[in-house]
Amino acid sequence: MEFLSEFLTRFVDKLQSPTLGFLIGGMVIAAVNSRLQIPDAIYKFIVFMLLIKVGLSGGIAIRNADLAAMLLPALFAVVIGILIVFIGRYTLANLPGIKTVDAIATAGLFGAVSGSTLAAALTMLESESIQYEPWAAALYPFMDIPALVTAIVLASLYTSKQKQRRAAEENLSKQEALSKQAVAAGGYPSEPEYPTTRQEYLSQQRGTEDNRVKIWPIVKESLQGSALSALLLGLALGILTQPESVYESFFDPLFRGLLSILMLVMGMEAWARIGELRKVAQWYAVYAFVAPLLHGLIAFGFGMVAHQITGFSPGGVVILAVIAASSSDISGPPTLRAGIPKANPSAYVGSSTAVGTPVALAVGIPLYIGLAQALMSS
Amino acid sequence: MEFLSEFLTRFVDKLQSPTLGFLIGGMVIAAVNSRLQIPDAIYKFIVFMLLIKVGLSGGIAIRNADLAAMLLPALFAVVIGILIVFIGRYTLANLPGIKTVDAIATAGLFGAVSGSTLAAALTMLESESIQYEPWAAALYPFMDIPALVTAIVLASLYTSKQKQRRAAEENLSKQEALSKQAVAAGGYPSEPEYPTTRQEYLSQQRGTEDNRVKIWPIVKESLQGSALSALLLGLALGILTQPESVYESFFDPLFRGLLSILMLVMGMEAWARIGELRKVAQWYAVYAFVAPLLHGLIAFGFGMVAHQITGFSPGGVVILAVIAASSSDISGPPTLRAGIPKANPSAYVGSSTAVGTPVALAVGIPLYIGLAQALMSS
Amino acid sequence: MEFLSEFLTRFVDKLQSPTLGFLIGGMVIAAVNSRLQIPDAIYKFIVFMLLIKVGLSGGIAIRNADLAAMLLPALFAVVIGILIVFIGRYTLANLPGIKTVDAIATAGLFGAVSGSTLAAALTMLESESIQYEPWAAALYPFMDIPALVTAIVLASLYTSKQKQRRAAEENLSKQEALSKQAVAAGGYPSEPEYPTTRQEYLSQQRGTEDNRVKIWPIVKESLQGSALSALLLGLALGILTQPESVYESFFDPLFRGLLSILMLVMGMEAWARIGELRKVAQWYAVYAFVAPLLHGLIAFGFGMVAHQITGFSPGGVVILAVIAASSSDISGPPTLRAGIPKANPSAYVGSSTAVGTPVALAVGIPLYIGLAQALMSS
Repeated sequence: MEFLSEFLTRFVDKLQSPTLGFLIGGMVIAAVNSRLQIPDAIYKFIVFMLLIKVGLSGGIAIRNADLAAMLLPALFAVVIGILIVFIGRYTLANLPGIKTVDAIATAGLFGAVSGSTLAAALTMLESESIQYEPWAAALYPFMDIPALVTAIVLASLYTSKQKQRRAAEENLSKQEALSKQAVAAGGYPSEPEYPTTRQEYLSQQRGTEDNRVKIWPIVKESLQGSALSALLLGLALGILTQPESVYESFFDPLFRGLLSILMLVMGMEAWARIGELRKVAQWYAVYAFVAPLLHGLIAFGFGMVAHQITGFSPGGVVILAVIAASSSDISGPPTLRAGIPKANPSAYVGSSTAVGTPVALAVGIPLYIGLAQALMSS
Repeated sequence: MEFLSEFLTRFVDKLQSPTLGFLIGGMVIAAVNSRLQIPDAIYKFIVFMLLIKVGLSGGIAIRNADLAAMLLPALFAVVIGILIVFIGRYTLANLPGIKTVDAIATAGLFGAVSGSTLAAALTMLESESIQYEPWAAALYPFMDIPALVTAIVLASLYTSKQKQRRAAEENLSKQEALSKQAVAAGGYPSEPEYPTTRQEYLSQQRGTEDNRVKIWPIVKESLQGSALSALLLGLALGILTQPESVYESFFDPLFRGLLSILMLVMGMEAWARIGELRKVAQWYAVYAFVAPLLHGLIAFGFGMVAHQITGFSPGGVVILAVIAASSSDISGPPTLRAGIPKANPSAYVGSSTAVGTPVALAVGIPLYIGLAQALMSS
Repeated sequence: MEFLSEFLTRFVDKLQSPTLGFLIGGMVIAAVNSRLQIPDAIYKFIVFMLLIKVGLSGGIAIRNADLAAMLLPALFAVVIGILIVFIGRYTLANLPGIKTVDAIATAGLFGAVSGSTLAAALTMLESESIQYEPWAAALYPFMDIPALVTAIVLASLYTSKQKQRRAAEENLSKQEALSKQAVAAGGYPSEPEYPTTRQEYLSQQRGTEDNRVKIWPIVKESLQGSALSALLLGLALGILTQPESVYESFFDPLFRGLLSILMLVMGMEAWARIGELRKVAQWYAVYAFVAPLLHGLIAFGFGMVAHQITGFSPGGVVILAVIAASSSDISGPPTLRAGIPKANPSAYVGSSTAVGTPVALAVGIPLYIGLAQALMSS
């Protein structure tokens, strides 16, 4: 019962957080038909500011990290981040009524990392006097950024396969129609008109021959998109230059405020699309409850392997598990909003903020600490 | 004489304040035909930021207030805020040459509250060792927001009545013309063409039947406008969620700076419209001198009633009077700029900043403290 | 050798500074064909914010300065600032392959002042216990702003003379053609069609009569442009009002961050135009190496004159020389970007940041301090 009351306390607490408050505020604004709007130029700039900040903080953390010592755990973090998105892609996305892009975005958010959940875990490890490597917290960008990139690329791949399939079907039915018509008219089938650009037509043709051919262009196009460009630019600047002064005086202090405004915009849009979720909300709730625990246990397993091979500390294993269990309610939403614009923000933000984060905090952290004490207390 | 020199000192001081400095700077920029412009998207976002901040700070003050104890004074504050706007509506607006929307906006600004005037009063009360309820300063949003909402709604009502009247007159003269024409042509009067939308036409028809019918739609439309939406959204988020962190790290620190840029924009516009005021400037000066004292005395009377009924402290009565006497040079202008776009900013900002605030500070505060000591020193 | 290693250290250090980091980041973004963009409204607002901040800080420094005592050095600073731009205009601009507007913008940047170079000089003077007037650092706006204004006006003059010359040539050849045609057709030359506006045509006519007539309108138009308007507005507000609170809470803290975003935009543009510089890069390198030392020595000479006449301190002379030697990598680029939009940012930012500033720091400061100790140690 204590668990349930703790869960409910955290749930109510989350509902009062400014992040979710502004999201709900945006929904109310839309519901009452207000004419309040955030200009598009501002919206785009806010997304840019948020993404470059996420990249910069990851890059600074990586630059200051002890890369040699953390090689194996960092590699595991990358693998887990990618794995989480694929798990969501092949479980949540296949549940009845769930839209695939919504599922991929949600899985991306659960692969991304919540700084506040991580901070809570560090506090708890210290209060339990469990040792951990000082660089363990710097594992987060190694999971966070691969998960977001994977989600955006998977969503692009899915969307463009859908287009191809539809185009191929239309092509087929159109060519059949044309053949009949052509026979009737005594002529020959003319070139189909619908591919609006030459390139689209060519890629379609290639697509019908071999679906694999198209993966690289789509990955490249995802990376050239404004979302991943800003994220990776921030990452590169964080690793290669010394942007601490401008990060600490500008990008970091503005972050929470700009995020609250983005949440408002996302709330306005979510209202228009909340109907889509009514029939499938229970699946998101199930996913959001199970995923943090499953992801955490998988990461715990990887951590145990590192413990055996390189002597990765028990506290470090817990941190890796918590990073996997946490779902980003801060860095993830703007990235996914810009990178997978078709996904419904109510799905992923709702799942993560309202269920995923409380579960990770109230169930996940105590579970992994208990496991670590039981398995590695020697 | 001491009063006059104090008044002049404060007047010159106000002229050097960045708020008025940027306003005058904007006028100079416009006067020299500079091509300097603030992009429209930025302007809209600045207004949004300012209004949501005003709402948030009001909401946080209300949430943290002792609502049970302050029930009667808070109710009085609401009543006074609305009353001040109506007083302005039926005095200033009826003076010769004064435009009604300018008068309503000015009255709205004098109903709104200046945080710095309030702070000066609190300092003076403490230096005179006059006791007041710790929640007394939290009365300000109960007067500030109703006054601004009332002003915007009154202005909308006035504007749409004007439109109706004009339309009705045109309608009449057109119908007369048409009747004559119709008689001449042997036909019947055709439907007038000028109402551009069906709705406009219908509301016009209703308008000629009963003027009262239209009040609610206009109030609703005012509330749906971007200005009041942002203000009320901020208020709701301040009361219902815990936005302190984002308020203190983002909305509050950016406020003064963004306000200075808004003032620049308002100055540019004011220059184009300053001619409108030349012939009536003396009326604004008279209003701006009398209003703070009149409003303060009315509020003092209400405060005395609360003193008799619930034991509202003498210091609290002074605070209520100062809140009524003060005119907002901070929260009010952006709200009125967005909510009553037709009103001339030179009228309301000039009246409040150059005359109203110095009078409230140099005459109002000492007067109400003296009255309180004379009447309630028992 | 120590000098060379110090120079290289500072050079590498500069490459890691966020300012140059974002510039290079923008070039990479453009090189990989990313779709990342900063909306135009945001870009314009960022430029406005940067320029008004530069103006405000100059104005505040002037208001707080002891103007009577600093009269002669301040006058010298103005003269040197203007002189530096003219030197660049008649040396760098005449080198083979160099575009005149690029050269003027680069000279403007070398006339403008770097706050960080100045701070380094003050630190070094203190560590060497060399006395200087407390107001000496406040000389910087007297050189910074005249240099930038001169550069923008010279560039406008050059551009419009170019237009006139081209128009005159076309006019001539067209009139010749027309005369021949007219003779052939037995008619008279018709009015040329190409001057798109009446004003343009008139100014062209005047231009062919007397090139000097047009200077004032161009100066006036430069001052009315958004760049110099914002700069001079900030200057006026800094001198005449008391904007310290809003400067310290808003314009100053946001400065470095907004500058980094401007650098990103400038980097994107620089990439598209870097080819222009390949063949002439060596001239910019030569100029950027020689100019800080030459400008510093000229200023040192002026400082010696002030030392003889008014007893200007040796430390003050060094500061004047350092102000002249330094090239602005902070206040200058946004001003020139907005004021001379045709100039290639790779030219001026590259020259100043990569060569000019390291030379001023590693060679200039020790040189002027040594000279001062040798010449004025009595």
